[in-house]
Amino acid sequence: MFLLCIANTELSKIPNLSAAGENPEAIRYTVPSDAELLFWGKCLTASILPLDPEGHPTPAIFTRAAYIMANFPVMVVRTGSFLPPACPYIEIPSSPGSNPLEKPAVEEAKRIYSWAKALGDHLSSLDSLMVIGESVPGGTTSAFLVLKALGYDGMVSSASPNNPSNLKIKIWESCRKRYNITEGTFCNKGLDAVTLLGDPMQATVAGMAMGSFNKSRVILAGGTQMLAVAAVLRHEGYDGDIEIATTKYIALDKSAHFASLAENLRVKAHVVPMDLSGSAYKGLSDYEKGYVKEGVGAGGALWYANHLGVPTEVVVNAAEQIYANLLGGISS
Amino acid sequence: MFLLCIANTELSKIPNLSAAGENPEAIRYTVPSDAELLFWGKCLTASILPLDPEGHPTPAIFTRAAYIMANFPVMVVRTGSFLPPACPYIEIPSSPGSNPLEKPAVEEAKRIYSWAKALGDHLSSLDSLMVIGESVPGGTTSAFLVLKALGYDGMVSSASPNNPSNLKIKIWESCRKRYNITEGTFCNKGLDAVTLLGDPMQATVAGMAMGSFNKSRVILAGGTQMLAVAAVLRHEGYDGDIEIATTKYIALDKSAHFASLAENLRVKAHVVPMDLSGSAYKGLSDYEKGYVKEGVGAGGALWYANHLGVPTEVVVNAAEQIYANLLGGISS
Repeated sequence: MFLLCIANTELSKIPNLSAAGENPEAIRYTVPSDAELLFWGKCLTASILPLDPEGHPTPAIFTRAAYIMANFPVMVVRTGSFLPPACPYIEIPSSPGSNPLEKPAVEEAKRIYSWAKALGDHLSSLDSLMVIGESVPGGTTSAFLVLKALGYDGMVSSASPNNPSNLKIKIWESCRKRYNITEGTFCNKGLDAVTLLGDPMQATVAGMAMGSFNKSRVILAGGTQMLAVAAVLRHEGYDGDIEIATTKYIALDKSAHFASLAENLRVKAHVVPMDLSGSAYKGLSDYEKGYVKEGVGAGGALWYANHLGVPTEVVVNAAEQIYANLLGGISS
Repeated sequence: MFLLCIANTELSKIPNLSAAGENPEAIRYTVPSDAELLFWGKCLTASILPLDPEGHPTPAIFTRAAYIMANFPVMVVRTGSFLPPACPYIEIPSSPGSNPLEKPAVEEAKRIYSWAKALGDHLSSLDSLMVIGESVPGGTTSAFLVLKALGYDGMVSSASPNNPSNLKIKIWESCRKRYNITEGTFCNKGLDAVTLLGDPMQATVAGMAMGSFNKSRVILAGGTQMLAVAAVLRHEGYDGDIEIATTKYIALDKSAHFASLAENLRVKAHVVPMDLSGSAYKGLSDYEKGYVKEGVGAGGALWYANHLGVPTEVVVNAAEQIYANLLGGISS
């Protein structure tokens, strides 16, 4: 099954940090819109689909296309989003993540993790394959902070071709001083790192994965945000296989260090070789220039479809059609 | 999988109508407590387990025992409960049902049904057997009203040995006059009956069942409340097999007409021959005298455990132990 975990963090309100929406007000709607696009093929809470500041569409259209073409079961898992999605969803009750520059980010991280673990135990009884994606605007920054606190020195990706790396480093430096911590302070205390610096998605996805490993193969669907989840798992004592599926845009991102971080974490990465260079739509062909890159589990959904026998090109073509229809006001 | 659908209706605030709690204030906690007992083996939102006015425990202890002994996957589905349960749950957003003596009961019944149908479509991809129970204090009355409006003349059961049948009939008469309807007015309009007179659980369970029939065997776990769901399905055009599993206490209830209603609705009933007469606990042996009878999908959970090879006596013994532990303050 494909699970989309949606959450928010107050970090997304810091100007110029997140490109998962046209502006901070629009970012409030990104998470429910991504869930609704995946589940229904149209946005209900907002009137338009999520766009980055330059107008490039959410990767949810690829996730939706993969689901439509490969027909795998889908569930949305909500854990601390500002707004609920207008579709059925699994609730792991949580507040949105706080800005760690103001207060600890996820005070209930351990409770959330344990509930998500119980959920994963039930869900993994139902399917031998769990593909888990996320939509968390600002989530690469909380990923960066958690990776740093767990001792990993490497930059995370961004949904923008101009990664605001310096801003992310500045936030880490401020947190470091505020809490009197340093790189690796939370070594072997993965959930403590999430509690202070992370976001609710990290606690939930780590818990769901930990609850599923006994019975199912787990694919973490995403880029450097899922590396932070992998780090939490490693620093909560999980020593088994961890697999991540992501788009080639993450692997090719020179502003970040996906491959070396994955290696350090002993993560097996499946990089999906999608090609949007020939797309008739600038909103999509610009993915090749580093816009958007990944999110809403797009890479994992493409991997999943391929695993079920649907070639990547077929999904990409379907995504183009979905995008065309949405531009024309037709839901798919 | 076993799905417990929890909901509330304002009908439960009418004095002496519902025995699913010690008093109307306690009834507010019945639904989250039932979910928590099933999921965790203990109540978190309230301090004690749900009891009827004479102190008999919720049938959730049997559902929990069946889950523990047979180890089937469990999910809670919330659709309009006053309080959320303190466990992971699937949300089908809804308000609690209104009192139809004041206004239409479930104005969004058709939307709820369609969302639940989409959910059922996804969930039934994961399991060829869907056992769906409910916890809705006051729900036998909304069941009675819907059955009447769809043209079925028969009394529903009660969680009390003294079925307040006259009060239920009086509420029907008042609704009849208020809305200028009569028995059978909503023939072939199952969801219109729910909209005016039902509760959110009926819309949700009917939708989940309708979305599941193509891929899975569906067992409606409950007594006369599930007959109302069956009636909604029949009057939304479903002509296939409908199966209900319930406890023998429903089948033996002389104050109600389970068997004849089931026959009229072409429902195949599985009656679980549990025997609590030898229980050391009055709270349980009194089930034989007509207290509590059924609920929280207890009969269906016993059926499910038996289907998986766990004899009813084994589950009943486990339920006694769970009850003993809860009386002693130990969660199970």
